[in-house]
Amino acid sequence: MTTITQTMLETIEEELQRQVARLDQPRTKEFHDMLTYHMGWTGAGAGPLATGKRIRPLITLFSVASCLSKSDMKEIKGLNWLHAKSAAAAIELIHNFSLVHDDIQDNSNLRRGRQTVWVKWGSPMAINAGDALFVIANQAVLDLAEYYPAEIVVGAAKILNDCCLDLTRGQFLDMSYEERTDLTMEDYWPMIGGKTSALLSACTHIGSLLGYAKESEQEAYRLFGYHLGLAFQVQDDILGIWGDESVTGKSAASDLVEGKNSLPVLFALGKNGKFAERWRQGPITYADVGVVSALLVDEGGREFAEKMSELETQKALGYLRQADPQGETGQAMLELANMLLKRNQ
Amino acid sequence: MTTITQTMLETIEEELQRQVARLDQPRTKEFHDMLTYHMGWTGAGAGPLATGKRIRPLITLFSVASCLSKSDMKEIKGLNWLHAKSAAAAIELIHNFSLVHDDIQDNSNLRRGRQTVWVKWGSPMAINAGDALFVIANQAVLDLAEYYPAEIVVGAAKILNDCCLDLTRGQFLDMSYEERTDLTMEDYWPMIGGKTSALLSACTHIGSLLGYAKESEQEAYRLFGYHLGLAFQVQDDILGIWGDESVTGKSAASDLVEGKNSLPVLFALGKNGKFAERWRQGPITYADVGVVSALLVDEGGREFAEKMSELETQKALGYLRQADPQGETGQAMLELANMLLKRNQ
Repeated sequence: MTTITQTMLETIEEELQRQVARLDQPRTKEFHDMLTYHMGWTGAGAGPLATGKRIRPLITLFSVASCLSKSDMKEIKGLNWLHAKSAAAAIELIHNFSLVHDDIQDNSNLRRGRQTVWVKWGSPMAINAGDALFVIANQAVLDLAEYYPAEIVVGAAKILNDCCLDLTRGQFLDMSYEERTDLTMEDYWPMIGGKTSALLSACTHIGSLLGYAKESEQEAYRLFGYHLGLAFQVQDDILGIWGDESVTGKSAASDLVEGKNSLPVLFALGKNGKFAERWRQGPITYADVGVVSALLVDEGGREFAEKMSELETQKALGYLRQADPQGETGQAMLELANMLLKRNQ
Repeated sequence: MTTITQTMLETIEEELQRQVARLDQPRTKEFHDMLTYHMGWTGAGAGPLATGKRIRPLITLFSVASCLSKSDMKEIKGLNWLHAKSAAAAIELIHNFSLVHDDIQDNSNLRRGRQTVWVKWGSPMAINAGDALFVIANQAVLDLAEYYPAEIVVGAAKILNDCCLDLTRGQFLDMSYEERTDLTMEDYWPMIGGKTSALLSACTHIGSLLGYAKESEQEAYRLFGYHLGLAFQVQDDILGIWGDESVTGKSAASDLVEGKNSLPVLFALGKNGKFAERWRQGPITYADVGVVSALLVDEGGREFAEKMSELETQKALGYLRQADPQGETGQAMLELANMLLKRNQ
């Protein structure tokens, strides 16, 4: 890891703690505890594995820094990526707000190997804890006013909230698909566009805005983030069925057992062949997994998903070249993108 | 009702519908339906009784209009209360976001006489519907940028989100009090400060900001809203125990049966007398209500709450005099405050 990446990660963690400390008051101590627990700082299992990788705020700051390093506008004299830290924190808080609510909605007991907030404190408290993370995310993005002109703060807050509405749209689609057996590929992209790509595109879009990039450049950054999200999600879908258990840390084919509407599955459902027939008969057990995943391969689901993943990866890298990020952070962002897009975990 | 009040109420309703229409797309039709149902526009029982009274956005627009009518700043040339309509909508959306989540948290089946969102669509969808109302509230306040300078938009968004964090604090306290039997009056004010007063003070604060009031005047408006909220809540607590069933529409003393930590109750718990002894023995049934509410009167709980309500009413009206709202809307706001503070329903 490069020095700048390490410095940024430390800055992100400090800024997140500073933002969440808004609830660190005697009367709301337990409330604050819920948030610091979820963020991975306190409680059983606290530590780097519990915090997650902070990829989203990191991409945000990479975008800021690599835009600033090639800008020659006089407005940015004395400005550096540090001044955008509250926006990076805002994005990570949005991500975590959605995780806290997701875990309730999906009835998930574990998150990053630890008990979820609703399991520890009950659903009513967990709903409120997620709400608080969302509020603090908005407060964090407005904190930009300390270093940025108000027009830019309003712009960043708009991008953030437009992205949040997309998150709720994606979540709605995901939940509404659960009981449907008539889905096709057409139903896939709007769902993952909301659930995965919206937030990643907000990272690169807000980052380039705060790096004073010109509009066409902001658009390239935005689209890089968007297609990075799509490519990442499709790969995740492939790994959820055919991934190496020892690498992914999940049981192979667990997505099939959980009935997840992943791209290979939706592709094959559209074919209306043997796979579709089996899928519509009801839940797949671990004993069925071998046969069912072989049907998916036979009917082209795996091949199609791999093609789509490659296509979206090429689009993402194409927009990244167009964005042309500069300097040490530009290089770090390219490496991070490659790591995410060619990951085998 | 005066003409201006009627015009404002119509404007508020139109603006709310326009904001919520962000989800009115073919793929998210059912999602949009959840929001329009909750807002009282569609589904069984839709209509004026289902929408609620829109008191908060109305107070917001009264504040804007009565400040504008006495301002002589050149910035406000051509500006009128209509330009603040998206902020008024934002506040009502925040109120409704909190109601949707409250109903899940409290396990409430009915809201304004209709099935709650979670009863109709399940908790996971209702959590997401509440989240969407919250996001749209933020988008609505940022829409002010069409008519206001960005500094003012940022200011309004900050007030709104600071208030939202107070709402989550109040909600946390309310929920954490449920299992406690050691509460006293000291625990009351921070809870209702968050749950009731924060949003009302945001109405008058944002309203006066958008009416270009000077800072000292904004502070008077803010405090008027804050104490209006406290007075209103204490009165609500009194009516929840001793209110006239035929006027309140709730069973008399239902707050005692529900174990609500209201001001008369917390006052008497602090006395540690016969009432406290009975309260700590467990739930009160409708058969016990006569005896228990008489204990509350004997131990001074009713008298204390009535004194506090009067005190907060006087504070609210004092700040309103200091704010000195002008014009037709100033008069309408005074009437609305009197209606709320002296209400017997």
